[in-house]
Amino acid sequence: MSSSHPVSIQRLDGESSSRLLDAVAVEEPLEIRLSLDALMPGEHKPVSITMRTPGHDDELAVGFLFSEGILTAPGQIRNVSHWGRPPPGKAERNVAVVELAPDVDIDLARLERHFYTTSSCGVCGKTSIDALRQERPFADTDTSSFHTTTEALLALPDALREHQASFGVTGGLHATGLFNALGEVVLVREDVGRHNAMDKVVGRLFLDDKLPAAEYGMIVSGRTSFELMQKAAMAGVSTLVAIGAPSSLAIEMAEEFGMTLVGFMRDGRCNVYANEQRIQ
Amino acid sequence: MSSSHPVSIQRLDGESSSRLLDAVAVEEPLEIRLSLDALMPGEHKPVSITMRTPGHDDELAVGFLFSEGILTAPGQIRNVSHWGRPPPGKAERNVAVVELAPDVDIDLARLERHFYTTSSCGVCGKTSIDALRQERPFADTDTSSFHTTTEALLALPDALREHQASFGVTGGLHATGLFNALGEVVLVREDVGRHNAMDKVVGRLFLDDKLPAAEYGMIVSGRTSFELMQKAAMAGVSTLVAIGAPSSLAIEMAEEFGMTLVGFMRDGRCNVYANEQRIQ
Repeated sequence: MSSSHPVSIQRLDGESSSRLLDAVAVEEPLEIRLSLDALMPGEHKPVSITMRTPGHDDELAVGFLFSEGILTAPGQIRNVSHWGRPPPGKAERNVAVVELAPDVDIDLARLERHFYTTSSCGVCGKTSIDALRQERPFADTDTSSFHTTTEALLALPDALREHQASFGVTGGLHATGLFNALGEVVLVREDVGRHNAMDKVVGRLFLDDKLPAAEYGMIVSGRTSFELMQKAAMAGVSTLVAIGAPSSLAIEMAEEFGMTLVGFMRDGRCNVYANEQRIQ
Repeated sequence: MSSSHPVSIQRLDGESSSRLLDAVAVEEPLEIRLSLDALMPGEHKPVSITMRTPGHDDELAVGFLFSEGILTAPGQIRNVSHWGRPPPGKAERNVAVVELAPDVDIDLARLERHFYTTSSCGVCGKTSIDALRQERPFADTDTSSFHTTTEALLALPDALREHQASFGVTGGLHATGLFNALGEVVLVREDVGRHNAMDKVVGRLFLDDKLPAAEYGMIVSGRTSFELMQKAAMAGVSTLVAIGAPSSLAIEMAEEFGMTLVGFMRDGRCNVYANEQRIQ
């Protein structure tokens, strides 16, 4: 289970051609399943498949389940098991099974409905955007005390890059970093999928019972979209910083949720799109 | 329906702060629905919601349905209608309805199964990666005659950028371009989602009955993943060029499908990851 993989490449520059050994980011499917008492012994409820970079799969699985509103507290989990190689007698690989505690009651019918409304919502009478939104468990958390400085923010890209072990090798991994008010990057996860990198960070916080993460901000290596804003909002962070551009919907959500949104954080400057009062 | 949107921002550079007017890429949900004779009049089958940049929504809808193996030929479509604003008496907006021709029989149960296997496939006994793969309709197309040159490839990034009307304004849009053996970029589509940009190009080709696109290659503005390789393979192109890095799985698929895969196409050089025999 490595996040990078050696490959033989041909490098062309218009004048010469040379064969080199290079490294690429590993992408493999991970199937996330739930194991719960309502099912027959040994039976699992398949929830989702995501294309991800192996590593921190337990964090990815629970971070995803939390972001989707399926799990709400770490005490709901008895165990997370991972099948990197097929267990004896099983054909599956790349499977993470999240085993729920005995007293946890997940409404399986709701789970079905959930994914139905995620993939299509015209039937429910709401507008699409409302139906795509998760209910934020920490919507009432007061994040007004989180403040940082322009200097701290401007130092984030270098700090993120220092933690990106695999990006330097492959150039092919997204990252999400968690930073405190001093601008210190305290946790970084990488993945070929930017949503997975954030799910891994959120999953780590969830497993450590540190949600809502109101004392932290997040920095992402790419652009910000509806999906990333929603995950950050679910985790209760007050500030999202991106190296790249935001979408119109990311800005709308930041305004609605009272979150600070910063973009184009590069070359010693940045743009603040919403709630600049947190930056001093 | 514009692909960019004006916003007021605060620009910080550590010494000064100034308020500016900037432009961001528009992101809005699009719900894709099927209308077919098997349903009650006025009833639609919701298929998917994607977060996309408005514009070329008809191409996006049919390109997605083709890429997912649901549609196979343009004659199956009677009409594509689009509700940018709610029609009288309807609450929906951002909906594309693909109306099928009367004689087209889509197995609705198969459609359900399809999305079930897309989101979870452990139950079917196949390994995940097999279940995620679409059957390629043009797998037998001979693409061995498509050849290009290093010079033609190296000129692609500038040609793509020239066509990217909105990227220059927002810095926030992905693009997919279609190019011929001479390296001429003949079609470009942009979107906040890289998979959507490619679906739009494939959808245009599908509507014009130009699939398989064996005489063309594609260039993408970002990285290549399993998903983009699959879409390119579905469209029957022989060559995929990326400004960014490929994933391990993208390389595996290129080798399996006999496709030429080029990455890190920037600064006058590139890496060839598979099937370099098409580049002279």
